[in-house]
Amino acid sequence: MIIEVDKDADAGAIAALCDSLTTGDDVTVWPVSIGGRRFVAVSGDEARVPDIDAPIIVGRHSTNARGYWLVDRANGVAPSTVNVGDNPVGCGPLWCAAGPCALESFDDAVATGLAVRQQGAHALRIGIFKPRTSPYNFQGKQGPGVKLVPELKAAVGLPVVTEVLDPRDVGLMAEVADCLQVGTRNMTNQALLKELGGAGRPVLLKRGYRTPVEEWLRAAEFIVAHGNPSVILCARGISSFDTSLRFMPDLGAVLAARERTDLPVIFDPSHSAGRADAVARVALAAAAFGVDGLLIEAHIAPQRMYRPGDSGQAYDPTKISSLMAACTAVCDITARL
Amino acid sequence: MIIEVDKDADAGAIAALCDSLTTGDDVTVWPVSIGGRRFVAVSGDEARVPDIDAPIIVGRHSTNARGYWLVDRANGVAPSTVNVGDNPVGCGPLWCAAGPCALESFDDAVATGLAVRQQGAHALRIGIFKPRTSPYNFQGKQGPGVKLVPELKAAVGLPVVTEVLDPRDVGLMAEVADCLQVGTRNMTNQALLKELGGAGRPVLLKRGYRTPVEEWLRAAEFIVAHGNPSVILCARGISSFDTSLRFMPDLGAVLAARERTDLPVIFDPSHSAGRADAVARVALAAAAFGVDGLLIEAHIAPQRMYRPGDSGQAYDPTKISSLMAACTAVCDITARL
Amino acid sequence: MIIEVDKDADAGAIAALCDSLTTGDDVTVWPVSIGGRRFVAVSGDEARVPDIDAPIIVGRHSTNARGYWLVDRANGVAPSTVNVGDNPVGCGPLWCAAGPCALESFDDAVATGLAVRQQGAHALRIGIFKPRTSPYNFQGKQGPGVKLVPELKAAVGLPVVTEVLDPRDVGLMAEVADCLQVGTRNMTNQALLKELGGAGRPVLLKRGYRTPVEEWLRAAEFIVAHGNPSVILCARGISSFDTSLRFMPDLGAVLAARERTDLPVIFDPSHSAGRADAVARVALAAAAFGVDGLLIEAHIAPQRMYRPGDSGQAYDPTKISSLMAACTAVCDITARL
Amino acid sequence: MIIEVDKDADAGAIAALCDSLTTGDDVTVWPVSIGGRRFVAVSGDEARVPDIDAPIIVGRHSTNARGYWLVDRANGVAPSTVNVGDNPVGCGPLWCAAGPCALESFDDAVATGLAVRQQGAHALRIGIFKPRTSPYNFQGKQGPGVKLVPELKAAVGLPVVTEVLDPRDVGLMAEVADCLQVGTRNMTNQALLKELGGAGRPVLLKRGYRTPVEEWLRAAEFIVAHGNPSVILCARGISSFDTSLRFMPDLGAVLAARERTDLPVIFDPSHSAGRADAVARVALAAAAFGVDGLLIEAHIAPQRMYRPGDSGQAYDPTKISSLMAACTAVCDITARL
Repeated sequence: MIIEVDKDADAGAIAALCDSLTTGDDVTVWPVSIGGRRFVAVSGDEARVPDIDAPIIVGRHSTNARGYWLVDRANGVAPSTVNVGDNPVGCGPLWCAAGPCALESFDDAVATGLAVRQQGAHALRIGIFKPRTSPYNFQGKQGPGVKLVPELKAAVGLPVVTEVLDPRDVGLMAEVADCLQVGTRNMTNQALLKELGGAGRPVLLKRGYRTPVEEWLRAAEFIVAHGNPSVILCARGISSFDTSLRFMPDLGAVLAARERTDLPVIFDPSHSAGRADAVARVALAAAAFGVDGLLIEAHIAPQRMYRPGDSGQAYDPTKISSLMAACTAVCDITARL
Repeated sequence: MIIEVDKDADAGAIAALCDSLTTGDDVTVWPVSIGGRRFVAVSGDEARVPDIDAPIIVGRHSTNARGYWLVDRANGVAPSTVNVGDNPVGCGPLWCAAGPCALESFDDAVATGLAVRQQGAHALRIGIFKPRTSPYNFQGKQGPGVKLVPELKAAVGLPVVTEVLDPRDVGLMAEVADCLQVGTRNMTNQALLKELGGAGRPVLLKRGYRTPVEEWLRAAEFIVAHGNPSVILCARGISSFDTSLRFMPDLGAVLAARERTDLPVIFDPSHSAGRADAVARVALAAAAFGVDGLLIEAHIAPQRMYRPGDSGQAYDPTKISSLMAACTAVCDITARL
Repeated sequence: MIIEVDKDADAGAIAALCDSLTTGDDVTVWPVSIGGRRFVAVSGDEARVPDIDAPIIVGRHSTNARGYWLVDRANGVAPSTVNVGDNPVGCGPLWCAAGPCALESFDDAVATGLAVRQQGAHALRIGIFKPRTSPYNFQGKQGPGVKLVPELKAAVGLPVVTEVLDPRDVGLMAEVADCLQVGTRNMTNQALLKELGGAGRPVLLKRGYRTPVEEWLRAAEFIVAHGNPSVILCARGISSFDTSLRFMPDLGAVLAARERTDLPVIFDPSHSAGRADAVARVALAAAAFGVDGLLIEAHIAPQRMYRPGDSGQAYDPTKISSLMAACTAVCDITARL
Repeated sequence: MIIEVDKDADAGAIAALCDSLTTGDDVTVWPVSIGGRRFVAVSGDEARVPDIDAPIIVGRHSTNARGYWLVDRANGVAPSTVNVGDNPVGCGPLWCAAGPCALESFDDAVATGLAVRQQGAHALRIGIFKPRTSPYNFQGKQGPGVKLVPELKAAVGLPVVTEVLDPRDVGLMAEVADCLQVGTRNMTNQALLKELGGAGRPVLLKRGYRTPVEEWLRAAEFIVAHGNPSVILCARGISSFDTSLRFMPDLGAVLAARERTDLPVIFDPSHSAGRADAVARVALAAAAFGVDGLLIEAHIAPQRMYRPGDSGQAYDPTKISSLMAACTAVCDITARL
């Protein structure tokens, strides 16, 4: 349940309301402020939430039906624009974050970053902690890699988007990165989502590759409800019996998310395509659905990547400018139809 | 197994070869001519096919690996252009067939046909036999409807694409229609596919909504191997756990089909989208994958359709010209990237 | 729509009712008699069916919601027992049909048939027409094979269950076989389903391996509504992302079918397992869900089968008796819980 | 890569080997001891692992092909029996953990626990931290709930199996619980899996409901490779287009896991069935595949559960004894076939 309180309510009155709602029936309560509006979030069986009538209450909203409320477009709470560094994502020109799968060679990362910046990308995406299906694959530079981020940012001159896997790393990562990514394998990792609610950094939330759109929106709600409204939704393909591409472009999910929330929606064509020579087509198809941005895996020298098997997915950074122009043209075409 | 024989081999020599290949081990054999090349198709366990060395044989090709050979791009047999009426599908401007789901009111069918023709569509799609999941839904006008096709064609002035469900109807339908459609529910109806091999009309073969691409190509091979090389592949979305659209746009299948065969590949955005207001986006996404044409359900007055539930999918015929222009622009963008 | 009429209504009154219901709005009507009850089936948009009030009408049932009515348990029309030869399927001891995938060697077919009969099987399953994904695979003996069925039956002494692919073959096959099978690839082949409504033989209807249960029941309704109430539903596994077995045992479908219809429900463990050494486990799991029978692919000498790739699925006929005993024990256990 | 070293190698030699394998190419290394054998685990691109030839090395195993090695049956490292409290899971009588979804009322938890104990269950399963798709649902008693576990155990007299969601909770939970569960939503939460490698408690690892079997085994490898060989694999149904049951019983996964690893494999019929009246059938089907145990959601008074929607899944504790007897009978039947 979400209870909206008067935006001018004083802290004491809100704390008193929280106290009176908290019951031995495992009802827990916490305050949330978003964009000038103030709420009390209530977790627990709604039938056991006391029916309190405090003067500061301006709305009392059941969340039983959908499981989310703050991100629901109908309620006008979640933002339609999220800034990564100084660049807005949503409601404006197509945003683009590009860069290597993982930080491996520092020099290659800088060179790739400079190349994508020169091509007009707005942010550098790069992995420091890498979720891998095997414990024996390179897991990213991890702690030592985190320490390199400031130097990398300074050398490249772009804000950094990077994935976080462990709630214990959120604070540290929030100090050095501009946007924290939740990967597809952690979309249902609720301990991580809750921690990101207090990160003070925008979150790029990838859709789980086998989760319904509604679950994706509820994952966003976890972050927003714990205090952080700056969530960028990132579709990236889902798995099905059809393996013509590594993951099927989930364009319908872009449409569904757009219809249900104001939060910006971007697309990762690289992980959907699974091969560099199909990235442009998937990106254009996403543009046909009016996405707010793209997340592209790119590398200046894929042959030097640690996992040769993955190198086939890395897009040539020198093509990003023309890809962005083409996608922008398609966005314009679809907007006019 | 496919055995290619000298294109100038005389009929007697081919017949003799067929005879000598036919064995008591359930090996059956038939001749096929496609585009000036001549083949003997062999059905049966390859280990039991006699290893005959006749002078007219110019190639002997196992089909065990993929199950198709004639439609395989590598072999240069299947055509890259198929004519429907006088209009080519493939290797040229975007083709478009549009029209009502089913022939219901004759006047509405004509009016819709004239509207889509005026908008630049190249063919009228319309259902005479309708596969429906319930025996109590309208099954199409069937026999009496077939008799109306000549009059409909004359009134509209476009070639007609229409679905055939029963091998017994193929001959009759081939007399009145310009292109015979195999619907998604019959993609694995092999009795129908074989009959269409002798139809003398181009076949628009929809992908089964739950079949892998390779099975779709083998379905095409059934038609081609039984004598009819004029097959248009039509992707139309597949089912998955994600129901944001009625069927997920199977863009990867377009790419996969393109890479494996020269046969033209088109897309049906209407049945993938399942709602009129998403048809344009799906069509543009298909254009981003470089399809050769579109198959669009359109109706001049959806509110008069028999099944109100389906009317939400019918596209406004007066928008087809601008949709085709937009899709052509996207095709050009993707071709240049 | 299904209209029930007085069971003693005379033919003239029913014909008159049919006439008055048939309209220019593409409403078509036909009479059906099942188990002593008489119906008029109406196909078309229900809003256009005339609201006629004839004295012989005893019930008027919309079919819009589910698409089926006659097979719905709630209406008590479809039978709970279907005889194949002299053996009942449903409401009694576990029925078993077993035999080779296809009729290849006549001697092997007879030997396998005698083996499964000796082991207690109630019917011989064997393919004369075989749906194959490639036109170059052995398609069954077809016409010549049909002629061998009487001799095969005489030699084995069991009723024969065999697949039919083409509506044109239904009449011929009904003369020689005891039960006609609709394969998984033809569950949505409605021309075939309708033709089987007049076959005068029980139909074993396999579930399409990618179709929802409701569509399966509507396929049964097609057969029943066209005059043939003797339908045996056969689950056989569905495809999903999990390929641990060739098809996932769809046990939930058995339960769902049981809850919605009285028609007998059996299981094909062979095509679900895809390997002989898992057939018993799948059969036992099906027994845990209380199926009425099993359809088992068996061969006395799998190494002589035409397609060695398929031979790994053939169950050893000499184990059928102990498998049936084990499954019966599990059926008893589940019934008592 | 896994390097096996002499089981009598001294710690210094192993440390020296680890040092010499650790390189600037992001190769990281750590020692693991399992069941008297000693290994060095190597994470990184195998092409960059130095090819060192130390005398203590007795085997050098690439993990590129499958991504797991320690849990692979072929290598005889992972155990076939895991103790939960004093009861073995694997290679013996069917193990059963049962209990309420979540700890809500302490009294109901004790009463349910006593009931399942009296019925022969070997462990109490109960949720303290609950992953829920919405932040507004009851998330479990969490911290305060952890403090109640010792009292709960004392009152019930059974070991406790409970889920952990956050790597920061592993240490605390390991102090009070006997077995730590990884839920289906966290199977790919690698920070959690690694932390459980040092938990010193057996781990019950549920399969992700949309993950392939191979990914499940690699998740187990994460735990084992980080030091904890006591992993129980728990299948619990997967999602597909067929929603006849909440999740399709993934019996093939049980078979596949059995064939690839010695680790015990159990089944959760409650979350697969999604309804109490189908739990027994799913459990029997799992028994037909020879599982080592069952995990059953049970509640003495489902009508008092916080989420009435979930109460339909809770099994009646007083039926557990007869269910276990029936499942044991089916296990015996399948073992004899």
